[in-house]
Amino acid sequence: MSSPLRIWSNVQCPDLLHKLLEERVAPHQLAFSSKKEASVLVAAGSDPALNEADIAFGQPDPDSVLKSPKLKWVHLTSAGYTRYDNEAFRSGAKKRGLIVTNSSSVFAEPCAQHVLAMMMAIARQLPQSMKNQLTDHGWPYFPCRSGSVLLNGQSALIVGYGAIGARLAELLAPFQMKITGIRRTIRGDEKAPMKTFAEVDALLPAADHVINILPAAEGTANFFNADRFARLKPTAIFYNIGRGDTVDQHVLRDALLAKKLHAAYLDVTTPEPLPPDHPLWTTPNCYITPHTAGGHSNEMERLVHHFLSNLSRYNQNENLQDRIM
Amino acid sequence: MSSPLRIWSNVQCPDLLHKLLEERVAPHQLAFSSKKEASVLVAAGSDPALNEADIAFGQPDPDSVLKSPKLKWVHLTSAGYTRYDNEAFRSGAKKRGLIVTNSSSVFAEPCAQHVLAMMMAIARQLPQSMKNQLTDHGWPYFPCRSGSVLLNGQSALIVGYGAIGARLAELLAPFQMKITGIRRTIRGDEKAPMKTFAEVDALLPAADHVINILPAAEGTANFFNADRFARLKPTAIFYNIGRGDTVDQHVLRDALLAKKLHAAYLDVTTPEPLPPDHPLWTTPNCYITPHTAGGHSNEMERLVHHFLSNLSRYNQNENLQDRIM
Repeated sequence: MSSPLRIWSNVQCPDLLHKLLEERVAPHQLAFSSKKEASVLVAAGSDPALNEADIAFGQPDPDSVLKSPKLKWVHLTSAGYTRYDNEAFRSGAKKRGLIVTNSSSVFAEPCAQHVLAMMMAIARQLPQSMKNQLTDHGWPYFPCRSGSVLLNGQSALIVGYGAIGARLAELLAPFQMKITGIRRTIRGDEKAPMKTFAEVDALLPAADHVINILPAAEGTANFFNADRFARLKPTAIFYNIGRGDTVDQHVLRDALLAKKLHAAYLDVTTPEPLPPDHPLWTTPNCYITPHTAGGHSNEMERLVHHFLSNLSRYNQNENLQDRIM
Repeated sequence: MSSPLRIWSNVQCPDLLHKLLEERVAPHQLAFSSKKEASVLVAAGSDPALNEADIAFGQPDPDSVLKSPKLKWVHLTSAGYTRYDNEAFRSGAKKRGLIVTNSSSVFAEPCAQHVLAMMMAIARQLPQSMKNQLTDHGWPYFPCRSGSVLLNGQSALIVGYGAIGARLAELLAPFQMKITGIRRTIRGDEKAPMKTFAEVDALLPAADHVINILPAAEGTANFFNADRFARLKPTAIFYNIGRGDTVDQHVLRDALLAKKLHAAYLDVTTPEPLPPDHPLWTTPNCYITPHTAGGHSNEMERLVHHFLSNLSRYNQNENLQDRIM
């Protein structure tokens, strides 16, 4: 056990959770930032209080992190970390031996469940039934039945396979699908057959489901471009729960309009929020959820417990979970 | 191998499948009924051709079945068999040693996937996102995220546990839910803890998900009545893929309006089709699919293969799959 440390946080949580956090970090001290508007989507301003901290939990301002004299470990409350994912921050962190962890374990579960929900909804024609219920109250028995598709034996390509992809592979296991994961560095302990990005183009034509979980990072902008959409078969379904700018949305829309793609389910778009007059809202077979894949009712509770679990490892000098730097 | 038999069928299928069926039943002979309008929902009229048949595959008229002099085996193309599930038919069948099988194995897969789709859709707030997309194109990020619920650890009560319930339990296995099945006769080889109907009332108050798969049969009419709905907790979700008349829809609607029930997802209703002006269409948190749970694009193909597989067992004097009488 190390000596008492000072933990800075700009996490916004209910009083009960705040109290639990304070109790559980003891003997370390918790200092909540007075500037609490930050999130993975909204950048925090600089906070002088970071200068006193040994550990930061939340979404600290990257510049303030690098300038703070004592910080040893930053634990982010998000899975995405675009704000920190640049050469300046990485090299600054490396130079001073700063550990950075994120909360990808917390979001893997809801994100994987969200993708499964999207897959099942399209397979079972729920959007068609939902539209019918909101409009003409018909009884589209025959089209909805014959349009429903069993997932069994279909192929799914998970592009950007990580914690979410691994969990999704577990959720899909009972369907006996042909799942292939694509990731930069194959570790060998993955739960599905893995390929590298060099092989993705060759795999796209056979995929029934293309699940994009790419983050906003170097080399991922417009990853799904005209060439790659052209490789998909017309019965394929495309899902995006990564980041909006990894997809050329104009090409996606054209593919749907031309029926060169069966359907798309997007949880992320460019921009966000998607403006009310954006054509994707009314593109046939394009379904949109407002960046909700990671959300869950007990999100903050699970984030706090994830941090506490990592703090316990930190106290014991063990390897931290979800280390990204 | 028995000597060549005559197989009557009123199955409606594409020419290719018709041809495959004729080829595969050889040396038995296939005689397609000229009266093909029948389905599980539409009764067939009497057909004198049944008098020549040893085996019937499809939806034969129950009276004609009992009067036919040679019939040894009836294989139904549905999972439901209300039309045959009465004392007159059962005793008539028993008296003459008639075997009756149904196609529950074929429909277990799509039905289980349909329930999972409903569960995931509500858990991930897909109806809310869908409604938003069809109406105001907003970006309900916060309510949809905080309203989303992880299935992990929740409890599910499967009432009328059979082939569908067993498959659903398999699909839900990765979520580590607390699943309990309710069935008339517990066999001991079920994939979930089982209870009998005598215990259902005591189990209802703890259930997060109540999944009704009860058929229309003696004792199931209005099974979910005012007393049973009153036992559910206000956060519970009720699903019906059994038959509409097993549920008191007035009570269900009142429970939803009074927020004594969180949501309902109905694939079956009374009547069907549900008239456009029926109040369930516009009841808050009530979602309706038009009896599509069993549907799938390759339904007829799977029905034909299921029959052929049973015919092969029949040829070898083996026990038939999905035997109901």
